[in-house]
Amino acid sequence: MNGALDRLSVNQWTVRSWGVPELADGCARHGIAAVGLWREPVADYGLARSAKLVRDAGLRVSSLCRAGFFNRPGWLDDNRAAIDEAAALGAACLVLVAGGLPPGSKDPGSKNLAAARTRAKDAVAELVPYAAGAGVRLAVEPMHPVYCADRGVLSTLAQALDAVTAHPAETVGVVVDTFHLWWDPEVAGQIARAGRERRLASYQVSDFLMPLPADVLLGRAVMGDGVIDFGPLSRAVAAAGYEGDVEAEIFNADVWAADPDDVLVRVKDRYGALIAAELDQGRRTG
Amino acid sequence: MNGALDRLSVNQWTVRSWGVPELADGCARHGIAAVGLWREPVADYGLARSAKLVRDAGLRVSSLCRAGFFNRPGWLDDNRAAIDEAAALGAACLVLVAGGLPPGSKDPGSKNLAAARTRAKDAVAELVPYAAGAGVRLAVEPMHPVYCADRGVLSTLAQALDAVTAHPAETVGVVVDTFHLWWDPEVAGQIARAGRERRLASYQVSDFLMPLPADVLLGRAVMGDGVIDFGPLSRAVAAAGYEGDVEAEIFNADVWAADPDDVLVRVKDRYGALIAAELDQGRRTG
Repeated sequence: MNGALDRLSVNQWTVRSWGVPELADGCARHGIAAVGLWREPVADYGLARSAKLVRDAGLRVSSLCRAGFFNRPGWLDDNRAAIDEAAALGAACLVLVAGGLPPGSKDPGSKNLAAARTRAKDAVAELVPYAAGAGVRLAVEPMHPVYCADRGVLSTLAQALDAVTAHPAETVGVVVDTFHLWWDPEVAGQIARAGRERRLASYQVSDFLMPLPADVLLGRAVMGDGVIDFGPLSRAVAAAGYEGDVEAEIFNADVWAADPDDVLVRVKDRYGALIAAELDQGRRTG
Repeated sequence: MNGALDRLSVNQWTVRSWGVPELADGCARHGIAAVGLWREPVADYGLARSAKLVRDAGLRVSSLCRAGFFNRPGWLDDNRAAIDEAAALGAACLVLVAGGLPPGSKDPGSKNLAAARTRAKDAVAELVPYAAGAGVRLAVEPMHPVYCADRGVLSTLAQALDAVTAHPAETVGVVVDTFHLWWDPEVAGQIARAGRERRLASYQVSDFLMPLPADVLLGRAVMGDGVIDFGPLSRAVAAAGYEGDVEAEIFNADVWAADPDDVLVRVKDRYGALIAAELDQGRRTG
């Protein structure tokens, strides 16, 4: 079983009550070799201190979450700071969320979705030289359309791939997140395309809860507790050549209220039962 | 102003407290010439009686809502009954909602989204001869991906068009619903395709509310109260040759709690302000 776990990463927000030291300690106790970090708890513990701690613990940093939000004032400085942080942490990628429509107003101009999508693409382009200079790979994350207005105007994997296609693959890739993309009619073909174009920067897994809770942000679940079939997606990602970590990222009020050690046990069990073998099978057919 | 309203239809669930007679009376008072009916209130008042009432009132029936739900036991009989009802009412189309994944179980087989999508396509095919015999046009409605698991596995306009392409356009078309499709990156091109393929059977309008209410089913709003820019969508639909009614279909707890007469006034105002002129402009460029 342990061998099958060697690609499992736990995203820090899955065990949100844990700061960086608790997370590093918990992963050590549970035999988990990679973590997805969030900027806020990293800042709380200190960037250099966090970097040293995870390095000394032998943990891979599968991603740093997150930057983007290109519709917010000050986005450029904030994204550059995030790139610096990702470099300091040695993160495999920095996750970029496009942001939604411009905030607030009833002005019809603020509802221009096509313009917001173009702006996201332009903003990524603006970040590429800085990221390349820092040796950081950006990972653009398409988000479920339920977040199109307020968090992420890039809704499909095809859109995300189109948004990054002008830039070197070693500097900009995409995130395949099961929660965001399970419904996408083109997801299998676009995962294969992402493989051919060498854009697969991150594979994040969580389930889609039904019925959704009142706060749709918390509609994620531990794999197996929702409606997603992880087989086809995991096989497609592996067949497309992705060999990185598989990051369990679960925003869920019940998960957050549970004992983090119990959560890690459940995540490991479900990863082992629903994903590890599918990755192996996909790799063989890829 | 009244001239600009000649294509506005009010869906019965927008003024949900009204039965068929109140709806017919309200439309007469407000100068609205078309209604979208629902099967339940039609059954409550009586099918033949409802048909006579709307006919005598000179109302067009822009749609009958709704059938489909191909994942439910007894779906075939229920859909045939709905086709008969649509014929009796002289409805311009019968709206079909694909239904979600098979209900209930944690069985991984029940999570086979690709199979559910194939089943929806097969079910439409099975209904086509019966609909053709009854002279009823089916209108397949792609639904926002937030409903993919529980209500509608067809998520994009391209998918809906692909699902009906084997059948005569006079018997099967698609619904373009702004709430469901505003985020779809391909919506403009697919509306144009729907026009070329003569599949535009219904244009339904409502806004997308942010933040979403606890029950995402009630996340619709009167046009102008949410995040959707109705200009590009309305122009595209008109440019694609759609000349049917424009049906305001709003599921919203506040709207339902308001005086239905006030709701009709608001719907008329917003239709006039945000949609009527866009349709004219689209038609000129189409």
